Amino acid sequence: MKRKSFFERLAGVQKRNASILCIGLDPEPAKMPKPFRRPDSGAAIARFNCAIIEATSDLVCAYKPNWAFYEALGLEGILALERTLEAIPAGIPIIADAKRGDIGNTARCYAKAIFDVWGADAVTLNPYMGFDTLEPFLEYRDRGVYALCLTSNPGAEDFETPGRLYLRIARTLAENDRHGNIGLVVGATQTRRIAAVRRAAPRLPFLLPGVGAQGGSARAAVRGAWGERPGSVLVNVSRSALYASSGSDFAEAARKSAEEFRRTLQGCVPES
Amino acid sequence: MKRKSFFERLAGVQKRNASILCIGLDPEPAKMPKPFRRPDSGAAIARFNCAIIEATSDLVCAYKPNWAFYEALGLEGILALERTLEAIPAGIPIIADAKRGDIGNTARCYAKAIFDVWGADAVTLNPYMGFDTLEPFLEYRDRGVYALCLTSNPGAEDFETPGRLYLRIARTLAENDRHGNIGLVVGATQTRRIAAVRRAAPRLPFLLPGVGAQGGSARAAVRGAWGERPGSVLVNVSRSALYASSGSDFAEAARKSAEEFRRTLQGCVPES
Repeated sequence: MKRKSFFERLAGVQKRNASILCIGLDPEPAKMPKPFRRPDSGAAIARFNCAIIEATSDLVCAYKPNWAFYEALGLEGILALERTLEAIPAGIPIIADAKRGDIGNTARCYAKAIFDVWGADAVTLNPYMGFDTLEPFLEYRDRGVYALCLTSNPGAEDFETPGRLYLRIARTLAENDRHGNIGLVVGATQTRRIAAVRRAAPRLPFLLPGVGAQGGSARAAVRGAWGERPGSVLVNVSRSALYASSGSDFAEAARKSAEEFRRTLQGCVPES
Repeated sequence: MKRKSFFERLAGVQKRNASILCIGLDPEPAKMPKPFRRPDSGAAIARFNCAIIEATSDLVCAYKPNWAFYEALGLEGILALERTLEAIPAGIPIIADAKRGDIGNTARCYAKAIFDVWGADAVTLNPYMGFDTLEPFLEYRDRGVYALCLTSNPGAEDFETPGRLYLRIARTLAENDRHGNIGLVVGATQTRRIAAVRRAAPRLPFLLPGVGAQGGSARAAVRGAWGERPGSVLVNVSRSALYASSGSDFAEAARKSAEEFRRTLQGCVPES
């Protein structure tokens, strides 16, 4: 039997958990409660993540570990990532936030690392070197690719040209989504532009980071991003949920925060 | 005493070894001699790399391991990378070919991973999300950053706009190279355009991949890229040297190949 596509699986969990919330698992030991504040211990970091996952897995539709935070902890971080992924319940998709972007053979190696070695369901990629940098990932038809399109950093326009690179990326990827496994990363703070990206790519699902700590307005972002396909919007929250409390109640506090985000986000979903 | 900059150190080795050749350490187990052909063994991969390093370290001015090839081998790959870096003689710079590109906090984590955890002397980065994605790396003043500028893949122009993104990147980085630690990656096959990038960024050092297996003409590339600063050109060769033989003479064959590349490249260096 053909395995469902990533976006079909995502839409299934979104329905089941009534949630378009994704929690970003980005370990920052300095922000953790004291017993976990051990950058030298992959086991401690993993225990923190496991408690967060246990407290929130019925409230989210995906988890998105950011590879950088694990790599910064060296080999212990890699071990923490391994244990963290194992703790995510089967059926909840894992999005590897790795922003890889390279050509040919190297791109194939990164695809192998993310999908075969780590077993992620989807990955964030940097598409600016050209469409061919995505292809080795897209060949995994049951996995998803979220390509950077419009980001929320101050320098996002340093290399924007009058041709509006982000709309060009959106259009090119929409036209070339042969297997229905391409999505876009669109910063939630860019509310004025989200609707323009949606018009350029009506059928591509969006991953919206930047709600929460980065201050994006959930309503404007979700409304602007909403699209015609199930799974069309996924909103990521990291710090605001993970580090809602640095006391021993951190897991409960994370759950409470996730519940609030879920409710707020569900309130923004247009009625179908 | 202030530590010399990366490009000063690179220029020093280039002079000492009379070489602008960098060898890319990109392990592909299937291409290795049989005893090393073990993707499940970091130790076997590391032994192959160590033999290559031992056979060539007086002929090169840097080594450039490509992170993707190690990540594709999972935890064993990470262990192989660790042992490989340890085997590179002190004084020969290590360029982490990792093409990271992300914002804010995440970029800081990647910088920490590459420079503090792995101890690399320089890194390749993807600058397309904006100049601020490079800044956490540039704060390490004694390390170098090679930002992607012009690549040699078929899709390199998918997102080129009439504004010539690659020249815009070259100019922006040249204008903002406050600590003298920015270089550019310029594909050696793009011979017509290398000179234009050089004019846009007269003082930035270039890393030229694509000579050798990718078929770039060494002479045209080196001549077009040559700049006013010491260390202005570094040419990377990977497969053509690493896998010059798949027999038990692989290390000698790699040395012979490196000697030839070194000689050819030195013949392209303009007389000073």
